[in-house]
Formats: sequence, structure tokens, C-alpha cells
Amino acid sequence: MSKVCIVGATGAVGREMVQGLKELAYPVSELRLLASEHSAGKTMETPYGLIKVEKAVPDSFKGMDVAFFSAGSVVSKELAPEAARRGCLAVDNSSAWRMDPDVPLVVPEVNMDAARKNKGIIANPNCSTIIMCVAIEPIYRNYGIKRIIAATYQAVSGAGWAAIEELRKESEDVLAGRQAKPEVLPMKNGTVHHQIAFNLIPHIDVFMEDGYTKEEHKMVDETRKIFGDQSIMVCATTVRVPVFRSHSEALFVETVKDFDIEDVKDAIATGKGLVLEDDPAKYVYPMPFKVSGSTLVHVGRVRVDSSAPRSIALWAVGDQLKKGAATNAIQIALGLLE
Amino acid sequence: MSKVCIVGATGAVGREMVQGLKELAYPVSELRLLASEHSAGKTMETPYGLIKVEKAVPDSFKGMDVAFFSAGSVVSKELAPEAARRGCLAVDNSSAWRMDPDVPLVVPEVNMDAARKNKGIIANPNCSTIIMCVAIEPIYRNYGIKRIIAATYQAVSGAGWAAIEELRKESEDVLAGRQAKPEVLPMKNGTVHHQIAFNLIPHIDVFMEDGYTKEEHKMVDETRKIFGDQSIMVCATTVRVPVFRSHSEALFVETVKDFDIEDVKDAIATGKGLVLEDDPAKYVYPMPFKVSGSTLVHVGRVRVDSSAPRSIALWAVGDQLKKGAATNAIQIALGLLE
Repeated sequence: MSKVCIVGATGAVGREMVQGLKELAYPVSELRLLASEHSAGKTMETPYGLIKVEKAVPDSFKGMDVAFFSAGSVVSKELAPEAARRGCLAVDNSSAWRMDPDVPLVVPEVNMDAARKNKGIIANPNCSTIIMCVAIEPIYRNYGIKRIIAATYQAVSGAGWAAIEELRKESEDVLAGRQAKPEVLPMKNGTVHHQIAFNLIPHIDVFMEDGYTKEEHKMVDETRKIFGDQSIMVCATTVRVPVFRSHSEALFVETVKDFDIEDVKDAIATGKGLVLEDDPAKYVYPMPFKVSGSTLVHVGRVRVDSSAPRSIALWAVGDQLKKGAATNAIQIALGLLE
Repeated sequence: MSKVCIVGATGAVGREMVQGLKELAYPVSELRLLASEHSAGKTMETPYGLIKVEKAVPDSFKGMDVAFFSAGSVVSKELAPEAARRGCLAVDNSSAWRMDPDVPLVVPEVNMDAARKNKGIIANPNCSTIIMCVAIEPIYRNYGIKRIIAATYQAVSGAGWAAIEELRKESEDVLAGRQAKPEVLPMKNGTVHHQIAFNLIPHIDVFMEDGYTKEEHKMVDETRKIFGDQSIMVCATTVRVPVFRSHSEALFVETVKDFDIEDVKDAIATGKGLVLEDDPAKYVYPMPFKVSGSTLVHVGRVRVDSSAPRSIALWAVGDQLKKGAATNAIQIALGLLE
């Protein structure tokens, strides 16, 4: 049995963490909910009873076994080492530690072994990266991967509760003929805000020097680190769409070896953490509003991309709050208990 | 001055045709609105006054100069030759004639010359193809194109008024906590219907043997015909998104020759029918709700795709009802008047 902390318990991912512990039957002997001073003192209803939220401080982790962090990079940067120092494993959902060479970046379906070499902190990848990595793992394992082109269709949940609420409010406004008043997207602390209701915003996280967003960089750098293969080429365009909580991705994957497309489908259907939903004749393919709530990555529209030799086109959808965040983090900790 | 017919005048594209004639200052001396028996007898308010809708029959085209067809393939197949036979040029927005070797398929920014070789019928390409072709024309002209990967984000307007109404109604239902009742998408005459509100449907038009949709095939076949270049490789995943009327596309273009990315941006900025909206520092990039109403294709997020040699990533948005349909058709006819 495990003594578990959740840091950032009141956020969108934090709440999924609490639910996820129960759903994945994590052996919880004690659950401590931590948050900023602002949320401390609130009481949260959980599958483990009513729990009072405490302010996260270094000594919160004393005597605890594992802490799931989902309170942003600044908090993780400061408190994850404090947890580790106190013998409490930090599984961090922020981007703070992901590219640190001493910190494993883990998608259990791909590189659970890396998690076992941790020094007290394990990083949970970016949501769109997790979903892509689970979807392509059977392709990588069987045929190798040279290049991935990804166009994402990312739900507002990736920007937290405020963005979920913003999509709802703006949609109501637009339908009623009122002007929407965007305040959160594309970035809470951004200089300009854009309407997301009935719109698309091709901008997630900050822009870098080369014209890519940080979100797009994450899909390159994190994918290489997770597969432990710097030769994988990745190019992504990441786009926010007016969907509440599941991320979708159009992927175009060039393999190293030849494949038979039916074998690719079989490999996905039997792949870890995957469901193949691919029956075009019956209009069956993954759709975000149906995938929401699932802890798996759903893949469909698998077909030969004949525009290049050895290329596969597919469509992957995963619940951003679950497999894209909370589920993956909990699965990492569960894997270490085995 | 020209005597103009619009066939399918009461549909979503038909109404845009009527508006487009005025917007583009088409020299209209007479305007005849044609439709099915079902809509005949209705009166429509137009920039040319109130006009009674007549039933479209072969003799409707007698003495007329140009007929814009937007009433579906069955009507175009039957009536476009009747118009042509009566000396009335048929500009057809359906897919009926697009791949006919005797019928030019025209995007004025790319191949206006082809339109001049018509035998009485000219085909207007598919909406997502038009938007893509306008966006990539400067790249093709300056550097040649080997391969295009396209992931589309297509508005419901592409499926007509009923789909626009369906998105509105379903959104209201979902926001009010009611079950949505899809009846139109992904295809009006389809066997199954899926919710589009706060969802994505990776299925536009019918599925083909190879797992691609007909919409995805159009982006391959029509692009090659428009550029008159069978060597262009194209792979597309086309997706319906909960946006009312502009289509967006994430494009990844491999060129034949080397390029400097600043020159590519300049070529797009000065390209025909194009606007470059590309200032990430100021959060400026094309977004469908802002592009709606524009007759141009808006391009942004132009950057080097370093996952392959000589590759460019970009984001293109165009109003599906205007440049994706009505505007393009009217521009073809206008070009022939020059």
C-alpha cells in the first residue's frame, strides 16, 4: 500500500489524478491533496472520502511514497526535488524536468524500463506526445520509424479548467448572437486572446525563434527521448480546436522497413494501451467526444500513404486528461510497484 | 454585360453565388435563379432585387451566357450539357465533370489558361483543393513540388445549410445538457450519423476501397489536374470540425529546389489571391472565424520543416463558401470576359 500526494489537486488534471487512482486500482493507504495557498483549506470530495486540501510545502512529502505533480513548471521545479530528497517519488506532469538528462521521461507502453532508473523524479510527457507515442509504438517496434508528420486537433482541457469554461461560455455567447469575450486562450498570460468557440487557434504554448511553438518542439524532442532514438524526424503543427477534452492527431509515419498494412492494423489492435477502431464501411473511427473517459488511445483510418515509399497514414485520439496526463502518470507509478 | 443563371440558387453555395456576383462586380444584365421543383416558386431577395426561383429545365439556359451550377452532381450531369448545347457556358461546382478529360478544372490563380480551352463546361474544384492550390501556387511556381501532406479542418458549410443548422442545434443541445440528435453529418444519405458539436469527424464524402475518402482522393487527383503535373504526390486526411464556414489546412510541402524561407513568405505575400498573416510574436495567424467573409486564402505559420530535406510547413485558411466555391466559380467566368 502507498501513501500518495497529489500536488495541484484542484486543477483539471489534478482532479483526474484523484479519480484515476481509484479507476486504476492504485493501492492507496493515504491520500494527501496539495495545492497553492489560494486553494488550501478547501474540501474535496474524492473516492477516498472528503479530504481537506493543504498548502504544498517541502515537508508535505515527509513519510509519503509518491507525489503526482500537476501544478505547473514553477511548482514542480521547486518542490519535486524536495519530495525526492524526502524519499517520496515525484511523478511530474509539468514540462519542468522532461528534458533533464537525469530524469526519465516515460510512456509505460514504450519505455517503462527507463522509469526504473529514476533518481527520485520521473517526468510525464506532454499530452499530445503521449497519445502519439502510444499510437506509433507498434509501428516503431515492428518496422522502425524515420519520420513523423503530425497535425493535432487539441481539446481545450489541455489549457485547464478556465479554458474548458471559456469554450462553454463563448459557445453560449456566439449562439445567442453576443460577442465572445476571450480571456484564456491561446495562453492565459498571453498578450492577446482569441475566440475558440466555432474557431481554431493554430497556437499552443509560446512561439520559439524558428516559428514553431514550444508544443510543437515537445512533440519532436520528447518523442526522441521516449523512444531513445535521436534519428526519428518529427514535424508537427499543433492546433487548438473547440472540443472539450480529447486530443486528436492526423499522423503520417514513414517506416524504415516494408510493411503489409493489414499487419500494421493487427499490431495496433494488439498493441499496449491501444484500441483499433477502424471500420470505414460502418462509419467507425475514433472521435473525441466518444473517446473522452477512455484510458486508452484509439486509432483508426489506418491506410497506406502512397505519396512516399513505406508510409502510413492514421488518426489517433486520446483523452487528454486521462491517458494524456493523469492515467499515464499513475501507470508509471503502478509499473514501479510490480 | 452577361445573362447569368444560378442553378441551386437556394443552397448554401447558391446564395453565396448571388452575393458573389455583386461583390466581384460581375457585369450582370439579367439574373435567373434556378432550383429543383421543391424550391421553385419561392422569391429570393438579391442585390439585383426580388427574383422568383424557377424550376431548372433544359430550356432555362436558352439565350443565357453563363450558368453557375451548385445543385449536386446528378443535376450537373444532366443539365450542364444542356446549357452548353444552348451556348450557355456551364461553370460547375459539383464533382460531376471535374475529372472528365474534356472539361477544364480551374483555379484562376493557377491555370486560367485551361479555362479558355473549354467546350462549354468548366469544373470548379473541390473546396479544400482550391484553398490548398491557391496557398501552394507560389511554392510550386518558384521551387516545384514533390509531395504534399495535408490534414484538413473543414467547416460544416461544406455539407450545406442543413449541416450549418445541425452544428448550431447540436451545440445548443449539448450546452443545455440535452442529447444531440445528429441527422446530417457525416453524410446526409449515410447509414449512421455522428454528432459534430464539440467533436471531430474524420470522414468527409464516401469511403473508397483503399480506406481513403473520396474527399481525400479529390485532393490528390484534382491537384494534379489543376497544376497539370501528375508527378505531385499528395496524401490527405480530411476532418470535419465544429466550425461554421471556413476550411483550414495544415500543409507540409516538399519542394524540388532549395528555398530560403523568407523568400517563400515573400512569394506567398505577393501571390495571387493570397494574404500572408504570419506574425507569431503578435499572435497573428489565420483563424477560420476571422477569415469567414474573405474571398482570399489566408496563410500563416510558414516555417522550415526540417524533418525532411527541402520541406515547408504552413497553415492555410479559406472561406469554403466563397473562395472554396462561389468566388472561384465567378472568378473563372470573369477571367473569360477579359
